[in-house]
Amino acid sequence: MAEAGLAAGKVDGGVRSIARAVDVLQLFDVDHPRRTLREIVALTDLPKTTVVRVLATLDALGLIVDQRDSTYSLGAGFLRWVDLARSLWEVGADARRVMTRLVDTCGETVNVYIRQDLSRISIAQVEGTATVRSVVKTGVPYPLETGAAAKILLGGAPESVLRQLVECRTDLDVDSLRREVLGISRAGYAVTHGERELGASAVAAPILSADGRVLAALSIGGPTSRFTADRVDRYVDAVTESAAEISSIGLGSVEAFL
Amino acid sequence: MAEAGLAAGKVDGGVRSIARAVDVLQLFDVDHPRRTLREIVALTDLPKTTVVRVLATLDALGLIVDQRDSTYSLGAGFLRWVDLARSLWEVGADARRVMTRLVDTCGETVNVYIRQDLSRISIAQVEGTATVRSVVKTGVPYPLETGAAAKILLGGAPESVLRQLVECRTDLDVDSLRREVLGISRAGYAVTHGERELGASAVAAPILSADGRVLAALSIGGPTSRFTADRVDRYVDAVTESAAEISSIGLGSVEAFL
Repeated sequence: MAEAGLAAGKVDGGVRSIARAVDVLQLFDVDHPRRTLREIVALTDLPKTTVVRVLATLDALGLIVDQRDSTYSLGAGFLRWVDLARSLWEVGADARRVMTRLVDTCGETVNVYIRQDLSRISIAQVEGTATVRSVVKTGVPYPLETGAAAKILLGGAPESVLRQLVECRTDLDVDSLRREVLGISRAGYAVTHGERELGASAVAAPILSADGRVLAALSIGGPTSRFTADRVDRYVDAVTESAAEISSIGLGSVEAFL
Repeated sequence: MAEAGLAAGKVDGGVRSIARAVDVLQLFDVDHPRRTLREIVALTDLPKTTVVRVLATLDALGLIVDQRDSTYSLGAGFLRWVDLARSLWEVGADARRVMTRLVDTCGETVNVYIRQDLSRISIAQVEGTATVRSVVKTGVPYPLETGAAAKILLGGAPESVLRQLVECRTDLDVDSLRREVLGISRAGYAVTHGERELGASAVAAPILSADGRVLAALSIGGPTSRFTADRVDRYVDAVTESAAEISSIGLGSVEAFL
């Protein structure tokens, strides 16, 4: 839930309303262009009266369309931001080609993650070819303290970010997290098993700017059962090579905002 | 302001917060990818403390990025909806070509408007070639009771929409509005001068589905000084012809949601 992403103690009524609006809106995606009221209530776990009120507000603002048949769809109001979001965040075609070749090599889903505040967000994804594959949602903030991509991104984050992360997660120790991130930064790649989710593994490497800053993390992810020691060796080679290639090609105009 | 779009009496605290969030977000567009706190406060006319709170909330939700230099930009969180919004609302390339040819013919800005609830929204725009031209924002809800495009869209709207519009605008008379809309519907085009804005004129015609429903309005707009009687005659021919062409080509996948 979006609300979970908000620091405890900072949630007041207005803030909660905005978070709920995002919770409702993020149920709509390419696979779910329409949603019924029942689905929205069930998936957000909000009271029906709250959902109805949020939907009516978003409808009036053009962000939701009440189809008048108990279904809702995303409103044309989002066009306000589509062009800007694409020009800011879309990964260039050359970089996408490298991602696609990496999928062809490894068979696993490939993502480019960036750090935004205390979250990681996938800005591009090319799905793996196997039946059982990893699929994340682009544009959705995920936690920044677990997973291979997160560790790579932390390698380029200021010390204050590590401290803030540890503040929000009492089970984290800032010194051991820092040591781990530093080690990964020196090695040039990260491998994690079951950190984000049981049964999910990942290999990630940094995409760097011309002056060596960590811009993003190139990551492949899939079921732990496929990430055996042998395959991980191959995956590490492929991912670090592809990340270096994208670093030299450039991510596209998104680099200006990272 | 987005809040103005919400029916009086229905605005409570939560609703107001969502409207304010949209007010802040819609300041960001291709021409303004970054905004300073000062600009946001001035343009929304909200108290600075409110703006700071809304920005912090949107930041935590991934929709805004605090660049840490007193500027803010649109967050990668919008990628959640970019693909869906484009597949739902993007006008097809063939229809856009007709729009571009219409601009070449008339020199005026061309828009395709759809009706969403009690608003009209531009889902596609090709700007005119003159120095003084009409420019509207795509994705932003505009009033449905004034302007050529609005009158065309009302021709395809149910009676209940006219009634609701009149309820919100005590200076409107439902019978005369209905008569006007019916007349325009029969003529097949609308011409308005200074209805939406003093000095702005427009000519619009309906884009129809295969079974004759009004899907959208094709509209050209510009300064009244250029919309002389002679030119308007030419404009009406060009717009009705282009609208008929788009009707037969089809608007694209957006038709499924209109």
